[in-house]
Amino acid sequence: MPHEVELQPGERVDDLLTYEMKIIQSAEVFSFSLDAVLLARFAGVPQRGRVLDLCTGNGVVPLLLATRTKADIDGVEIQPRLADMARRSVALNGLGPRIRIIEADLKQYAGTGNGIYDAITVNPPYMPVGTGEHKENAHVALARHEIGCTLEDVAAAAMRLVRTGGRVSMVHRPSRLAEIAEMLRRYRLEPKRIRFVHPRAGAEANMVLIEALRDGKPELRVQPPLIVYGEDKQYTKELLDVFYGRRGELGGSE
Amino acid sequence: MPHEVELQPGERVDDLLTYEMKIIQSAEVFSFSLDAVLLARFAGVPQRGRVLDLCTGNGVVPLLLATRTKADIDGVEIQPRLADMARRSVALNGLGPRIRIIEADLKQYAGTGNGIYDAITVNPPYMPVGTGEHKENAHVALARHEIGCTLEDVAAAAMRLVRTGGRVSMVHRPSRLAEIAEMLRRYRLEPKRIRFVHPRAGAEANMVLIEALRDGKPELRVQPPLIVYGEDKQYTKELLDVFYGRRGELGGSE
Repeated sequence: MPHEVELQPGERVDDLLTYEMKIIQSAEVFSFSLDAVLLARFAGVPQRGRVLDLCTGNGVVPLLLATRTKADIDGVEIQPRLADMARRSVALNGLGPRIRIIEADLKQYAGTGNGIYDAITVNPPYMPVGTGEHKENAHVALARHEIGCTLEDVAAAAMRLVRTGGRVSMVHRPSRLAEIAEMLRRYRLEPKRIRFVHPRAGAEANMVLIEALRDGKPELRVQPPLIVYGEDKQYTKELLDVFYGRRGELGGSE
Repeated sequence: MPHEVELQPGERVDDLLTYEMKIIQSAEVFSFSLDAVLLARFAGVPQRGRVLDLCTGNGVVPLLLATRTKADIDGVEIQPRLADMARRSVALNGLGPRIRIIEADLKQYAGTGNGIYDAITVNPPYMPVGTGEHKENAHVALARHEIGCTLEDVAAAAMRLVRTGGRVSMVHRPSRLAEIAEMLRRYRLEPKRIRFVHPRAGAEANMVLIEALRDGKPELRVQPPLIVYGEDKQYTKELLDVFYGRRGELGGSE
């Protein structure tokens, strides 16, 4: 372990894939998912400049992005408990100078500057309010449901914070794709690249990765589908290559 | 040939897949494409009632739909030359009582009745004006470019003509998907089902099939991708099954 940090009750330190990176997780509060890993591989990010991750949770996306770019990376998280976890994970990996975790509501944070980021990533809450959030603990409910921010809040914040020509990448559920496309366009974020993730060949997609360009012209590329599990019920080679960074990116490098 | 009809110069009679159906084509004026065939397989159509095909061209979609439903089918085409070809193809197959070809501008035709159709299909011009239409003959230019009708004209006409809860199915280019999603939603046509068509495994999609529900609630399904060519550069078994109707539908039956 490169740096020592304190753990809170219920927390554990997990390996973050093969990067000799560590991340603090907690089953009760927040653990990263495949969605975040694929977003961090898919997103178009510049080699230098400033990158922002909204709804950063325990900081998994900034940590993974730091393996792909030398840009400074900010992560914004509304929950103090998660922002604190993320900060300690950054310290644990000695990435303090490059990754900064900001505890803030993205709606307020959007007022801090216009066009100050070159690229933005976001793994927002997938589910509208009124879809069972009362059955979950407060941390999980906030991360999964649009309690603290809606899709429109995310699009509006991203539009203000990203520069013209900058990229905004999102992972979400395909069930909401039509709304997502409309909302991004409403906030001058033109969808340019989409990749669907299917759990198995022959199954419907259960995840969508989408990259938009601030003030881009309308022309969307739909990349080949990514299949997660093979017929042997194990991860496909394609997925493992992406997961462990063995095959570069998911098409999102610049 | 079940019925005799006259051919114009440059026209030929082709087999329409395996349905023992014939269709009049003309290399200079209009020949059907894989797009139309897949649309006719993908579209959700009721077994009875009234179905409308906009931008019907030489009538390929109504002819193919007639093998899937007992509904009455109207086809609207703005070009007199194509509407005439379509009418003769209908006669050639003895489908006169069930398929009616209407020579009209869909913008005007939309004024003929509100919600009078149970389902609508459309294979509209894919390309905006200003993308090379002057290099094509007038028939081809009108079928390929948004000269006679835009995406918005199509969505507006479909919204007026389809009943609440009725389906509108479209084939288009993935490059325009974000605009399509926004435009359909603007006209109360909620995208509910999408299928992407990829020319080869590992290639970007070059066609998208999309079904919307008039006044539906937002929840989109992204079906498994359809791959056209195998590694042997021949049609995949999956595509041939769809093409020749051996495997029922592309997921669009009711």
